[in-house]
Amino acid sequence: MDTTKKTIILFSGDFDKVMAAFIIANGAAAMGDDVTIFATFWGLNIFRRAEKVQSAAKKSTLQSMFGKMMPKGTGKLGLSKMNFAGMGAPMMKKVMKGAGAMSLEDLVDSAREQGVKFIACTLSMDILGFTEEEMIDGLEYAGVASYLSEADEANVNLFI
Amino acid sequence: MDTTKKTIILFSGDFDKVMAAFIIANGAAAMGDDVTIFATFWGLNIFRRAEKVQSAAKKSTLQSMFGKMMPKGTGKLGLSKMNFAGMGAPMMKKVMKGAGAMSLEDLVDSAREQGVKFIACTLSMDILGFTEEEMIDGLEYAGVASYLSEADEANVNLFI
Amino acid sequence: MDTTKKTIILFSGDFDKVMAAFIIANGAAAMGDDVTIFATFWGLNIFRRAEKVQSAAKKSTLQSMFGKMMPKGTGKLGLSKMNFAGMGAPMMKKVMKGAGAMSLEDLVDSAREQGVKFIACTLSMDILGFTEEEMIDGLEYAGVASYLSEADEANVNLFI
Repeated sequence: MDTTKKTIILFSGDFDKVMAAFIIANGAAAMGDDVTIFATFWGLNIFRRAEKVQSAAKKSTLQSMFGKMMPKGTGKLGLSKMNFAGMGAPMMKKVMKGAGAMSLEDLVDSAREQGVKFIACTLSMDILGFTEEEMIDGLEYAGVASYLSEADEANVNLFI
Repeated sequence: MDTTKKTIILFSGDFDKVMAAFIIANGAAAMGDDVTIFATFWGLNIFRRAEKVQSAAKKSTLQSMFGKMMPKGTGKLGLSKMNFAGMGAPMMKKVMKGAGAMSLEDLVDSAREQGVKFIACTLSMDILGFTEEEMIDGLEYAGVASYLSEADEANVNLFI
Repeated sequence: MDTTKKTIILFSGDFDKVMAAFIIANGAAAMGDDVTIFATFWGLNIFRRAEKVQSAAKKSTLQSMFGKMMPKGTGKLGLSKMNFAGMGAPMMKKVMKGAGAMSLEDLVDSAREQGVKFIACTLSMDILGFTEEEMIDGLEYAGVASYLSEADEANVNLFI
């Protein structure tokens, strides 16, 4: 058994759960583990570019609607609980800052610098109509078979 | 370590999470893995018969109420996010169809055909007042000890 | 591989999910496994003392607010679904009692008696402004590195 690999399926796009995922990923990477974050569904939102991207891809009306209503990047995520119509996450960020905790943006950067692999789920991207040009740089694109291969090599596999 | 077994505790009854569970289950089964889905709590709903079942079992008023308010089968599940008072899931199904993705019903059938084992948690059934006659065919009925035995033989164990 | 160890990250503070976590923990402990519950974020609430604690620690206004709005202990948790403005959990407890199922409080006590290790995530405590004097006795306090060390020794690691 390879005790030096961890995988996280990041299904959630909730600020608090994404935080948890990146804290674990950074912690494991700091201990020398290989870490893979496989972002799928709502979790894909954190890897969307915040700026508007002119995409040549044809999207259905519903795909455009989903795309517009879902947050782009880490800045606009909501809390899974006590979201207070969107005020929960800014409040949580403020207490985090007060406590001297790393911001989510710093955690993502740190994960990247530590070599955490980010994989965007291609099936979810097809469904939601996301194209690679709408996503941040440095992602790999793959499906469930790829996730499973990674998980088979890991000793801790979480679904968040 | 047996790298050919996976278990999924399907706790959630949200359309999007159930989709994720069955995509992983089908993917693993297609790669030759043994896969067990242990459905508990809200996840049990997907294995309830859609048609009305005249059950001889005595249910408490609250159990009957929970039973009536919770979805039966895969057809009426809601989204965990952006459910839009029930419109979210139909919209999601439409974008899935447009993207050529398998429907949840097809994924369940495919999982079954590929030999994925479905276990319904008996403790949750007792609590919610579900009887075996209300459930679809082909389920096994067992408790947490059974889940743990399966998980001990698996190398990937997810809670969804 | 050590097949006698399990870890659960208890991120959720929802009654139904906490129930699931403790049913699994008790089941595994009954089978002779070492079990660690690593409580973080909303999951920390279940280990807060129900009574008011006069804490010398300085909290920010937001931390005090979060602290007041979040449940203390297992008694006031809500359901993740069908919460019905707080009525869902009492109803669920009633059907559980009717079905002869163990209460959450009994499950927590039983887990403790069976030697399940409870770890409170110190980073989450710092963020939320929780102090050790506000928490029930018998907890260990540690961070993600500690969780990862436990997980490396376990063969089942769940995120709930």
